[in-house]
Amino acid sequence: MTDETRVHHYPAEMLEHHVRTLLVEAGARPSDAAETARALLHASRIGVDSHGVRLAGYYADLLRSGGLNPTPAPLYTRTAIATGRLDADSGLAHPACYRAMSEAMLLAREAGIGAVGVHRSTHFGAAGAYAVEAAREGMIGLVVSNSDSAVSLFSGTAPFHGTNPIAAAAPVRDADPWLLDMATSSIPFNRVKLYQALGIGLPAGVALDEHGAPTLDPQRASFLQPLGGEAFGFKGAALAGLVTLLSAVMTGADTDPVMVGTDAGQTADNRQNVGHFVIAIDPERFVGRDSYDTAMARYLSLLRNGPSLDSAHPVMAPGDREWQEARHRMETGIPVDPETRTKLDLP
Amino acid sequence: MTDETRVHHYPAEMLEHHVRTLLVEAGARPSDAAETARALLHASRIGVDSHGVRLAGYYADLLRSGGLNPTPAPLYTRTAIATGRLDADSGLAHPACYRAMSEAMLLAREAGIGAVGVHRSTHFGAAGAYAVEAAREGMIGLVVSNSDSAVSLFSGTAPFHGTNPIAAAAPVRDADPWLLDMATSSIPFNRVKLYQALGIGLPAGVALDEHGAPTLDPQRASFLQPLGGEAFGFKGAALAGLVTLLSAVMTGADTDPVMVGTDAGQTADNRQNVGHFVIAIDPERFVGRDSYDTAMARYLSLLRNGPSLDSAHPVMAPGDREWQEARHRMETGIPVDPETRTKLDLP
Repeated sequence: MTDETRVHHYPAEMLEHHVRTLLVEAGARPSDAAETARALLHASRIGVDSHGVRLAGYYADLLRSGGLNPTPAPLYTRTAIATGRLDADSGLAHPACYRAMSEAMLLAREAGIGAVGVHRSTHFGAAGAYAVEAAREGMIGLVVSNSDSAVSLFSGTAPFHGTNPIAAAAPVRDADPWLLDMATSSIPFNRVKLYQALGIGLPAGVALDEHGAPTLDPQRASFLQPLGGEAFGFKGAALAGLVTLLSAVMTGADTDPVMVGTDAGQTADNRQNVGHFVIAIDPERFVGRDSYDTAMARYLSLLRNGPSLDSAHPVMAPGDREWQEARHRMETGIPVDPETRTKLDLP
Repeated sequence: MTDETRVHHYPAEMLEHHVRTLLVEAGARPSDAAETARALLHASRIGVDSHGVRLAGYYADLLRSGGLNPTPAPLYTRTAIATGRLDADSGLAHPACYRAMSEAMLLAREAGIGAVGVHRSTHFGAAGAYAVEAAREGMIGLVVSNSDSAVSLFSGTAPFHGTNPIAAAAPVRDADPWLLDMATSSIPFNRVKLYQALGIGLPAGVALDEHGAPTLDPQRASFLQPLGGEAFGFKGAALAGLVTLLSAVMTGADTDPVMVGTDAGQTADNRQNVGHFVIAIDPERFVGRDSYDTAMARYLSLLRNGPSLDSAHPVMAPGDREWQEARHRMETGIPVDPETRTKLDLP
């Protein structure tokens, strides 16, 4: 999106319609297509374009190649009073993860906390889309997912973990949720590609070359370093590992280093087995919702009114920038790059 | 411990006895003193001396000043099938957090997952001590705690969050647990003091001076940056925030910026109200324990046998270095600095 003249803007509802149409034409059931469109629009609305409608073409290609099962029969099993498992049957991951969070909330409503592990799933876009669902219902939502190898271990010289996101959302009375949605690498690989396109150097501690040596040259960058870089990357690598333990080792999904690559030719005989793990927690069963709301409001007020490096840009809570962008895009529309515009058959 | 000639080594059992004696002499009940000694020895055994027996004197001082309640009456309330709350009544935090994890495991045994929030607690030492308890019983344990202000927000110029640790432990069949125990800052402040003592510069992106400007000079360092530093500190700050939401906003503890400082004169009228949040998850209710063990062993084998920057130092999983150190210290004893030796009345 470096050439602004070629970027067009569209209302969210129009994009949602075109994403649904593309996915249904590629073989998805209308209900599954609608859930995927909803997840992609979450990201597009808040400005996370890397995980927004741009991905619709990727999913459509996988539906056609057989890398995604267009007519999955997901199987949900409640395994205890507060836990469940969902076998996503290799379908679109978005309806599967919405379902998992929905079940986790049902469990939490009864038991105070609920957790659902998902296996035989696929790429689910932005983890925050599912965490936000819990916050909208007054609960704290936690969502993690493993992914195919893209990030080194600390002192490792080859990709091992995926970018393994951690998302969390928490309700804020009369306002948008507190929202954290982060990769456990410093940056995603498509940010490296952006630096390549712009012809500028990478920040220190984010990427490695093909031999596993740190590099600031985006042309030579071959894979990513964990959050914390050369000095403190053991922390990012450990967080990525925690994501893998919960998402894959616990659920029956493939661990990152043996998972079919996202860029590999995915077919019905060569599918990813991605795992997700979602938790919902009901504040009502802890300090109580009213006390929670009061404490949250006070905490956020202290945070946002603290001293900032730049008085024109106050300190923000996780999600503040994203919801601000969502309000902006409600007026201006959502920017779409030319390639995605063509794929989505947009005017 | 820069002067090795002044460091003496002692067997763990002997240190545990001296810690218990010191705490009981300061007014603690023998059972509480024993649990605190157990937590401190966890850290001392695995080489985390900043959170080991060195802290016993600090707790003894607080017991004498009234900053800690020597005879607390903790109140545990089960709030739902899978959740509970523990009011620690301002006693030593270690017995409180062991109790919280023990209750969470009981809940998880029945419900698949269990969570307990602790409030009116105090400084609990190393978070990993409690996470390990779950792993020893075949469960995944998660432990977070907030703490008093010491770390800036991203683009903030004053301390806001505490160093807010995240710990997780997972069982490994026939071996020590996978163990993550990390602050959400890059380094703790006592590491800054070590750089001061050594007279060498700080790594980039770890500390700020009193005006909130980044500094590499340990003499000018006034507080810490969140993990990720100047470029990616929004991630560390968001993780610290998640810890505060779970530990304090959810439980009724004080949030970090309003908490009584660890260095402040703590008395019966001026106590910290620290919060912890612990979760136990039973793999039996997900993929099943046997499948979990197989997947975990395969994952760890892939991780440890991956290519390393330095072939003499293979890649390690979280905890590997610590358990290795524990085996080493079993033979050599645990090193104790002169000040702590005096406080503990060691020969």
